[in-house]
Amino acid sequence: MVAGAREGDQRSVARLITLVEDASPLLREVMRRLAPHTGHAQVVGITGAPGVGKSTSTNALVGELRAIGKRVAVLAVDPSSPFSGGALLGDRVRMGDHTTDPGVFIRSMASRGHLGGLAWTTPQAIRVLDAAGFDVIVVETVGVGQSEVEIAALADTTLVLLAPGMGDGIQAAKAGILEIGDLYVVNKADRDGADRVRRDLAGMLSLAERAASAWQPQVLTSVASSGEGFAEVVAEMERHHAWLVETDGIVGRRARRARDEIEAIAVAELRARWADVSGRSELAGLAAQVAAGELDPYTAADELLGSD
Amino acid sequence: MVAGAREGDQRSVARLITLVEDASPLLREVMRRLAPHTGHAQVVGITGAPGVGKSTSTNALVGELRAIGKRVAVLAVDPSSPFSGGALLGDRVRMGDHTTDPGVFIRSMASRGHLGGLAWTTPQAIRVLDAAGFDVIVVETVGVGQSEVEIAALADTTLVLLAPGMGDGIQAAKAGILEIGDLYVVNKADRDGADRVRRDLAGMLSLAERAASAWQPQVLTSVASSGEGFAEVVAEMERHHAWLVETDGIVGRRARRARDEIEAIAVAELRARWADVSGRSELAGLAAQVAAGELDPYTAADELLGSD
Repeated sequence: MVAGAREGDQRSVARLITLVEDASPLLREVMRRLAPHTGHAQVVGITGAPGVGKSTSTNALVGELRAIGKRVAVLAVDPSSPFSGGALLGDRVRMGDHTTDPGVFIRSMASRGHLGGLAWTTPQAIRVLDAAGFDVIVVETVGVGQSEVEIAALADTTLVLLAPGMGDGIQAAKAGILEIGDLYVVNKADRDGADRVRRDLAGMLSLAERAASAWQPQVLTSVASSGEGFAEVVAEMERHHAWLVETDGIVGRRARRARDEIEAIAVAELRARWADVSGRSELAGLAAQVAAGELDPYTAADELLGSD
Repeated sequence: MVAGAREGDQRSVARLITLVEDASPLLREVMRRLAPHTGHAQVVGITGAPGVGKSTSTNALVGELRAIGKRVAVLAVDPSSPFSGGALLGDRVRMGDHTTDPGVFIRSMASRGHLGGLAWTTPQAIRVLDAAGFDVIVVETVGVGQSEVEIAALADTTLVLLAPGMGDGIQAAKAGILEIGDLYVVNKADRDGADRVRRDLAGMLSLAERAASAWQPQVLTSVASSGEGFAEVVAEMERHHAWLVETDGIVGRRARRARDEIEAIAVAELRARWADVSGRSELAGLAAQVAAGELDPYTAADELLGSD
C-alpha cells in the first residue's frame, strides 16, 4: 500500500486513509515508512459558515490548481457527521467536475468516534497525501465548532469564505475569524450585499493590530459557481506561500502542526494504556464516588494519575 | 462564592462558572467544597441543526418548567465561538422572557481555547449549577461537530430538535441522531412538511434495534414561538426521568459522566505536567524532527511518553 501510494495509485492512498480513520495498529509502521517522503505539499484550509458555498468553491479552486498543473488532494473534514453521515453523501456528488481526473484525489473524512476525533485523524491523512506526492492538499471544513481553528492550525494557508445574506452582524461579531484567515474570499459576489460584506470585513481587518512585518490578509471576491475570481484566489494563495517560505514562517507552522500531532497521538496512547491496565476498574470506582458526591473530580483525577 | 452559590445568589454562581471557563487554580478547592451538594439536578440536553429553533425552544421549555415550580439553569454551549463570539451576542437577547426571573439562571459558555475545550468546562459548569440547587439544568448546543454527542453523554435526558425544510434527506442520513435522542421534537409544526419529518423520523426510529426493556423514544411536535406542545415535551421529559430512576439507568449515566469528567481533568493535568517540566523543550525538538521528515509522529510520541 505504501509503495502504491508513493506511485500515485489512488486506491492505495484511499486504503491508507481508511487505516487512519480506523486508528489501525498498522499505522505505526505505515507512518514510519512515509516519514521521509513528507514535507513537500502545500496544505490549504478552507472554512466558512454553512451556506457560503464551500464545496462549490473547493471545486473551482481545484479547477484553477489543475489548470496550472498541480496535483491536488481534497480532504473534506466533516465534523457534522460524528458517525458516518457526511461520508454517505458521497464524494462524487460533492465534486462532480473532478471525479474522473487522475490528478485529483477526493475524500470525505469522519472521525468514527475515535478518541481525539478529527484532531487525531486529519494530520495523519495529510501525512499520507503529502507522501503520495500531491502538490496541494485542500482541507475543507464547515466553520463551526472548534473545527475552523483546528484547520487553521493544520494549514499552511487558511482561506476563510464568507457570503452576503448570512447574517452579517453575527459574522462580524465572530471576531475569531479575523484571527485565522490568511486570505478572505467573499463568495456569491454577484448577489446584493456582497460589497458591504467585503468592505466591513476589510475595515475590521485593518483595525486588527498586526506587526508591520506580519502578513496582511486580503479580501477577494468570487462567484464559485462560474469559477469567477479563483485565478486571483490561487495567485494570492501562492503569494502567501512564497511569503511563508521567504520568512521561514513555514518552518514554524509545520513544527507546530507536528507538535499537535505528536501530542494527540501521545494522549490517545496514554488513554489506551489506562484502559488496558488497572485504569478501567479504578476509574469506574472513582467515577461512582464522584457521581455520588463523595469525591470531587480533581481529587479523583489525582488518584488516577498517582497510581499510574 | 461557594456559600453564596449554595444560597442561590446568581452573581456567585456566575463567578464560579467564570472560574471554570478560565480553568482557575481555585477550582480544585471549589469542586471539593461543592461535591457533597451535587447529584440532585436533572440535566437535559437540547441539540439540533442550526435553524431548527433551539433558542426559542429552550425559552418555551424554561417557561413550562417554571410553570410547574422548577428552578432552571440554562447553559448555552456554543462551539461556534471558539473565542468569545457567542457570548458577545448576549444572553439577554437570546432568552428575553426569563432574564428578570430569579428562578432562572442563563449563561453562554465558550471554551476560550482551553485544552480539552467544552468537554472539560461543561461538566464542571453543570457541577456548579447542580450544587447551587437548580432542579433542571438545560444544556443547549448546536447540533454540529462532536458537540451533540458530547451533550448526549453529559445529559440525563437528550432532546433532539428537528424542523421541516432543513434538508430532510440530509437529516435522515445523519443516522447518528437516531442514537442520541431520548425524545425527538419536530419544531415549527405549523409549517409545511412538519408531518412528513415526524413520520420519517418515527419510521426510522421504529427500525432501530432496541431491547424490549430499552427506552422507546417518542417523536412530539411543537411551535416554540407560541409555546405550543411544550407541556407535552415536559411531560415526556419527566416520564423519561422517572424511567431512568426506576431502572437505575440514572446511576450508570451519572457514573459515565463523572468518568468522562475525571478523564478530561486527568488528561489536562498530564498535558500541563509535560508543559511544566522537560516536555515543552523536548516536544519542540521532536516536532522539528517530524516536520523535517526525519521521524514519524508515533515514534516521537513514544519518546515523549518514555521520558515522562
